[in-house]
Amino acid sequence: MAAEIISPRSIDQEPLDPAFALHRGGKMEIRATVPVRDADDLSLAYTPGVARVCTAIAEQPELVNDYTWKSKVVAVVTDGTAVLGLGDIGPEASLPVMEGKAILFKQFGGVDAVPIALATKDTDEIVETVIRLAPSFGGVNLEDISAPRCFEIERRLKEALDIPVFHDDQHGTAVVTLAALRNAAKLTGRTLADLRAVISGAGAAGIAIAKILVGAGIGDVALCDRKGVVHVGRTDLTDVKREIAELTNRGGLTGSLTDVLEGADVFIGVSGGTVPEEAVAKMAKDCFVFAMANPNPEVHPDVAHKYAAVVATGRSDYPNQINNVLAFPGIFAGALQVRASSITEGMKIAAADALAQLVGEELSAAKVIPSPFDERVAPAVTKAVAEAARAEGVARI
Amino acid sequence: MAAEIISPRSIDQEPLDPAFALHRGGKMEIRATVPVRDADDLSLAYTPGVARVCTAIAEQPELVNDYTWKSKVVAVVTDGTAVLGLGDIGPEASLPVMEGKAILFKQFGGVDAVPIALATKDTDEIVETVIRLAPSFGGVNLEDISAPRCFEIERRLKEALDIPVFHDDQHGTAVVTLAALRNAAKLTGRTLADLRAVISGAGAAGIAIAKILVGAGIGDVALCDRKGVVHVGRTDLTDVKREIAELTNRGGLTGSLTDVLEGADVFIGVSGGTVPEEAVAKMAKDCFVFAMANPNPEVHPDVAHKYAAVVATGRSDYPNQINNVLAFPGIFAGALQVRASSITEGMKIAAADALAQLVGEELSAAKVIPSPFDERVAPAVTKAVAEAARAEGVARI
Repeated sequence: MAAEIISPRSIDQEPLDPAFALHRGGKMEIRATVPVRDADDLSLAYTPGVARVCTAIAEQPELVNDYTWKSKVVAVVTDGTAVLGLGDIGPEASLPVMEGKAILFKQFGGVDAVPIALATKDTDEIVETVIRLAPSFGGVNLEDISAPRCFEIERRLKEALDIPVFHDDQHGTAVVTLAALRNAAKLTGRTLADLRAVISGAGAAGIAIAKILVGAGIGDVALCDRKGVVHVGRTDLTDVKREIAELTNRGGLTGSLTDVLEGADVFIGVSGGTVPEEAVAKMAKDCFVFAMANPNPEVHPDVAHKYAAVVATGRSDYPNQINNVLAFPGIFAGALQVRASSITEGMKIAAADALAQLVGEELSAAKVIPSPFDERVAPAVTKAVAEAARAEGVARI
Repeated sequence: MAAEIISPRSIDQEPLDPAFALHRGGKMEIRATVPVRDADDLSLAYTPGVARVCTAIAEQPELVNDYTWKSKVVAVVTDGTAVLGLGDIGPEASLPVMEGKAILFKQFGGVDAVPIALATKDTDEIVETVIRLAPSFGGVNLEDISAPRCFEIERRLKEALDIPVFHDDQHGTAVVTLAALRNAAKLTGRTLADLRAVISGAGAAGIAIAKILVGAGIGDVALCDRKGVVHVGRTDLTDVKREIAELTNRGGLTGSLTDVLEGADVFIGVSGGTVPEEAVAKMAKDCFVFAMANPNPEVHPDVAHKYAAVVATGRSDYPNQINNVLAFPGIFAGALQVRASSITEGMKIAAADALAQLVGEELSAAKVIPSPFDERVAPAVTKAVAEAARAEGVARI
């Protein structure tokens, strides 16, 4: 490859934007946790002392978890194809998000994380690459990989690896949504079984939310893509949507999003589209509107409040922010703590329940989910996930 | 894979060995270098602020070096096939060495480094995996990959990537050896051109030392493998050794190591074998014995001193330790500082010269190379390598 000359001028043109100033030089670093000041230190941390540790691991492989950072470090893996709302911007341009994720892992969960942005979009290549990286990591957090490849990549990696593999865009969002929905139901004297939900957006988040709601016992849920509600009669469905058609929409609804919203108890938007006010107006009494598209919610909160008992968004400047950071740090911290071989549906639901319960007596229409800066969040999720891993038989210590 | 149950007892059996105590939980961690304390911090380091940085990199790819940690982080890549003197112990068991390397990078060069131990020994798979990882890293340090695969892997990665790729077992050892040899020659009133050297061991280190000595203008050098001296008349040579046969041994020597040591000025041992005292006794007057096998030098220093003007080993408990840590942190720091597209022969020789010059007026038979804990070392190597990169046209800033 030709060497590109980077003119210092291009760097001097840094916009007067605090985000650029903050990002200069990156957002993270490696630190030694042991001293390396003199020859004695070196003879323990490096040769010859290290050879005895290597030999012990070669003889008893699981010791790698005790004597290296493996069991506390997660690879944050992307191919840069679905970065935030920016789409396929490539691996290099995705790195600021991956670094951001890594420092959130550390700040909120005490989990070390390393950005791995891959120079391939090929499903087979991504899968085989992550399998080859696995000896160095205690877990894999898939991030910003576009649907439907993300589903196959996660499924195949879960099958191949005995460390947790978790696609946060799916399951992190699903866990926090479930937590908020549980509390919204509680606030209005109902349970999940009393609710009929409609999800707009059949990408990674929508699919995962549909699955977790079914697993948690929702009354009914219908998933809508651009062609309307997903139902078993449709002939244009991908494998993943066909599976969803079987799992959801027990009412056998057909038609458009607007059609199925009529009388629905819950709207969950993960689409980036817009829902007309007339459709929201026809939802059931005491309905919930979770309009999570960023930065523009599918229903503006001011409009949603005219009809809904509870309104949530993805934005930090409105109440009830559905923010993945409530989930992924504690979920991985809990899984790593007990060296879980995977992250099961039960562990995700336990995380959601722990989040919901933290709200406690503060529960109100403006607070169905804790703040990301509530310091009790990660410890509570960690504990719940570790206990669920033990209960489900995937914990190894 | 089946979940293995790790009994707490296996961990309690930790030997009363300080190396194990030090290694518990690993030797490194990730740290955020920016604050993530409140919603304002998060809105810059993560969404929505991060999106503006991502967009800028998508439009102007080289900005990834300014606004992420890419240009300061190195992947320490191994397949676990040639770990220290332990051989093929596998990727997991190699991790303590890779972590050790990573913290030495940080401690001595200020370079962040991430251990990547791969679950494959296949040359093609290692090459393609590292190529896929490259967007996330500013450089690749290959480590403890067995010969001859290490040569092909490094060559192909250098061709494919525009970031520095450096096999430390080869070039780190070669740089420090060259530095020590320059000073030994100076001490005895000679130059490299006056010397005939013999290298025992035709693995990664031996091959690289032979090449750098030729590049630096050694009088002559002969490389010996288990079958004796490498020469153009041999029909059993690998491609790499055939190349060495063409480059070295201008004297056309044949025979055994003992044969060619007779009258030689320099012995360089990177073999792990043993050289009989009688052979050392027949070396030239004022000869140098660099017996670098660890923990057992090819010639015991006490024996070597009976015949040699300068003795060096790989051990920290004798004078003149040939220790790679003198080279690799500064070499990568210098290459990253100017965003070099590769590490050239000229940059390696500049590193060796900087190391040699640091000894200055302290030069003596017991000090031909600086101490690894001399704080001037990494800055001097960094500066020399950055300047050489500019001079050789591989610097990009």
